[in-house]
Amino acid sequence: MNSIKIGIAGLGNVGQEVAYQILNGLNVQKDLFHIEIIAVSAKSKNKSRKVNLENIKFFDNPLDMVVVPEIDVIVELIGGDEGVAKELCYKALENNKGVITANKALIAKYGKELAVLAEKNNLFFSFEASVAGGIPILKLIREGLIVNKINKLTGILNGTCNYILYEMEKEKKDFHEILEEAQAKGYAEADPSFDIDGIDAAHKIIILSGLAYGKMPNIKDLSIKGIRNITLTDITNCDQLGFKIKLLGNSQLLKNRDGIDELFCSVEPWLIPKDYGLASVSGVTNAVQVKSNLAGSVMITGPGAGGEPTASAVLADIIDCANKTNLYPFGRTSSEIENNFNTSIYKEKFKFYLRLNVVDKSGVLSDLTSIFKLYNLSIESFIQKANQRDKTADLIIITHEADNNILNQALIEIQDLDGVINEPVCLSIYS
Amino acid sequence: MNSIKIGIAGLGNVGQEVAYQILNGLNVQKDLFHIEIIAVSAKSKNKSRKVNLENIKFFDNPLDMVVVPEIDVIVELIGGDEGVAKELCYKALENNKGVITANKALIAKYGKELAVLAEKNNLFFSFEASVAGGIPILKLIREGLIVNKINKLTGILNGTCNYILYEMEKEKKDFHEILEEAQAKGYAEADPSFDIDGIDAAHKIIILSGLAYGKMPNIKDLSIKGIRNITLTDITNCDQLGFKIKLLGNSQLLKNRDGIDELFCSVEPWLIPKDYGLASVSGVTNAVQVKSNLAGSVMITGPGAGGEPTASAVLADIIDCANKTNLYPFGRTSSEIENNFNTSIYKEKFKFYLRLNVVDKSGVLSDLTSIFKLYNLSIESFIQKANQRDKTADLIIITHEADNNILNQALIEIQDLDGVINEPVCLSIYS
Repeated sequence: MNSIKIGIAGLGNVGQEVAYQILNGLNVQKDLFHIEIIAVSAKSKNKSRKVNLENIKFFDNPLDMVVVPEIDVIVELIGGDEGVAKELCYKALENNKGVITANKALIAKYGKELAVLAEKNNLFFSFEASVAGGIPILKLIREGLIVNKINKLTGILNGTCNYILYEMEKEKKDFHEILEEAQAKGYAEADPSFDIDGIDAAHKIIILSGLAYGKMPNIKDLSIKGIRNITLTDITNCDQLGFKIKLLGNSQLLKNRDGIDELFCSVEPWLIPKDYGLASVSGVTNAVQVKSNLAGSVMITGPGAGGEPTASAVLADIIDCANKTNLYPFGRTSSEIENNFNTSIYKEKFKFYLRLNVVDKSGVLSDLTSIFKLYNLSIESFIQKANQRDKTADLIIITHEADNNILNQALIEIQDLDGVINEPVCLSIYS
Repeated sequence: MNSIKIGIAGLGNVGQEVAYQILNGLNVQKDLFHIEIIAVSAKSKNKSRKVNLENIKFFDNPLDMVVVPEIDVIVELIGGDEGVAKELCYKALENNKGVITANKALIAKYGKELAVLAEKNNLFFSFEASVAGGIPILKLIREGLIVNKINKLTGILNGTCNYILYEMEKEKKDFHEILEEAQAKGYAEADPSFDIDGIDAAHKIIILSGLAYGKMPNIKDLSIKGIRNITLTDITNCDQLGFKIKLLGNSQLLKNRDGIDELFCSVEPWLIPKDYGLASVSGVTNAVQVKSNLAGSVMITGPGAGGEPTASAVLADIIDCANKTNLYPFGRTSSEIENNFNTSIYKEKFKFYLRLNVVDKSGVLSDLTSIFKLYNLSIESFIQKANQRDKTADLIIITHEADNNILNQALIEIQDLDGVINEPVCLSIYS
């Protein structure tokens, strides 16, 4: 029988569910492990919760738990990459307590440092719940595909964005209308920028890249684009052309000129052909596709957030800890993890989708095609749609495969053209 | 450093790949484990193989490996539910060697008995490669979702069937033509019945049910239907109606009248709405969807067969063994596994797809609808297509939700009607 004693910091939906499940008796492999909650901590002691914690020691300050001798592991469910959550995780490891956390911002930023500490003191440290909620993606990479060399990760990692894009198409409504509905339903925060500007997905792709390659790029230098400028026009056009628009976190190892693996990592909306598995991932569901040398392409989908799915992941970590799993949290020693480096811009060639909103007058198309010619870009398909209301036109262009950098240079010139109204929308096409 | 020494029995594609990967140095977490191949066994010693095994002891008879003192674990890659594979696994466990196997037929039939032996002697026993090749589905259920109560499993578990159904639609060719092409390409065996009649998928859903519920029904009493009677007409009609046809292994816990969980398990072709994730699983890809109380619906897809993906799963087991993972192979003690019982027929109500080939004369439709009325079955949609060539007609019917048993009774009467030519094709519609 392996027994562990935990302290839970943070009693939101996830913390309550974790406590509830443990106190109601986890019903599997009971003879192999015993989990006991020694202490909990939250902002308010007497708030009404789904689980009765009267008989468990309560701490107003979670940091006080790290000196309780009985506690083996701190379960950090407070959140945030700085402040008390960070201090708690560091202090716990320094005080010989293991750490289990769902904190993606913290792991993306300080995951390596925490791994170094855990390794130094030979402590359990895991963060399954930090990526894609109920989907055991870290275990999949770290253990299920353990002998594989992974070369590409693609993920639908933000449920809020996926929900908004899906609802825009289904309800034929524009971004802001669906965002408001999502906020009313609790699928989007009052300040939604963390989700819809791609920051949340960026944290997750950084953690996944740590697991898959031992490479955790600096978020400040990552190419991150959100979904704010995707319109219903884009979604409708893409649908007609055979694509869905999804916000993807992508990271890939590609050989550079010297034959050395270099990491390319980004978060941005892509066009995905409808018959691809990723295209049918709808609503708040998350998905991660892992391409590796032996297992090929493996994809896992499931609920990316919510109290119960996230608690499922936290509890799986707790049981791994009880079972004395001794694998490294990032699948390699902490000294092998490269972090805080800058990633390069994708050099692979893709087809691109462009939408330009222009004044509906002669000459604009001629100017545009001159720029295309200048940069040696060629057009695969072209649609022009007049907007009677405001006497503008939408020009929808699918290019042939083109170099990202060249296309971006062309876009700068296009944006400055007389008659081009807004910043052009440019999305890569997934292949 | 955890070190294990293995003997590999069977040097087909999978065995060769496992040996190749180990001898070429597994490149992950090297300081945590060391894997050594002590001996191998195959029918022919001197066959040309992708890996040089000259320096490794060769046994003509794999059974001789179980008395080699250095060997910790036998990796059984021979196959078959009886004969030498079975004897090897039993003898290995009796002689204090762990067992890792990819043998689905053996595990479906004798998994519980082998688990009892392993538990008695405190030995490692695992079979990740027995279900869905490179997809780590057993680890997903056993560890990733460990605290969940699973209530439904749905799997595309046979790559050959999925390939045939996919190619029939894509190439607009009938079953036998695509089967011959699949045989030529090596995607189907010379004797394909094991795959296309659903036996292979049945082995896998039995193993998954063991993991998910501790319930392993007897294959002899399982409702198993293959894909032999699916025609291009069915596929084309379903496509028009918004469905794909997939061979699914299904198992589900439902409360019976006494409120006790009862297992329903089957293998049969289903109609799946095109916007469901399972519908976009194409070619030889496998998929398993797991529904559980906390994590909700989690689906994993990937290559279901092939030397490299299957070796990836075998090697993950080998490393779990080296890391001294001590979880029970079926996620619970062997005494908790119920096996060799008969499953009930599904009692849930579904919509059904029916295709009848009838003589194109008056009266047939009237007789048919009388039977529908008699059994209180109602029709949601109806298509009649005349075949000019042979003066028959195909009647395509989608029913409203109906009871499986009642529908089957009606079908017996329908089959006996004057004018009905072949046995009707009846497929459930997944919802």
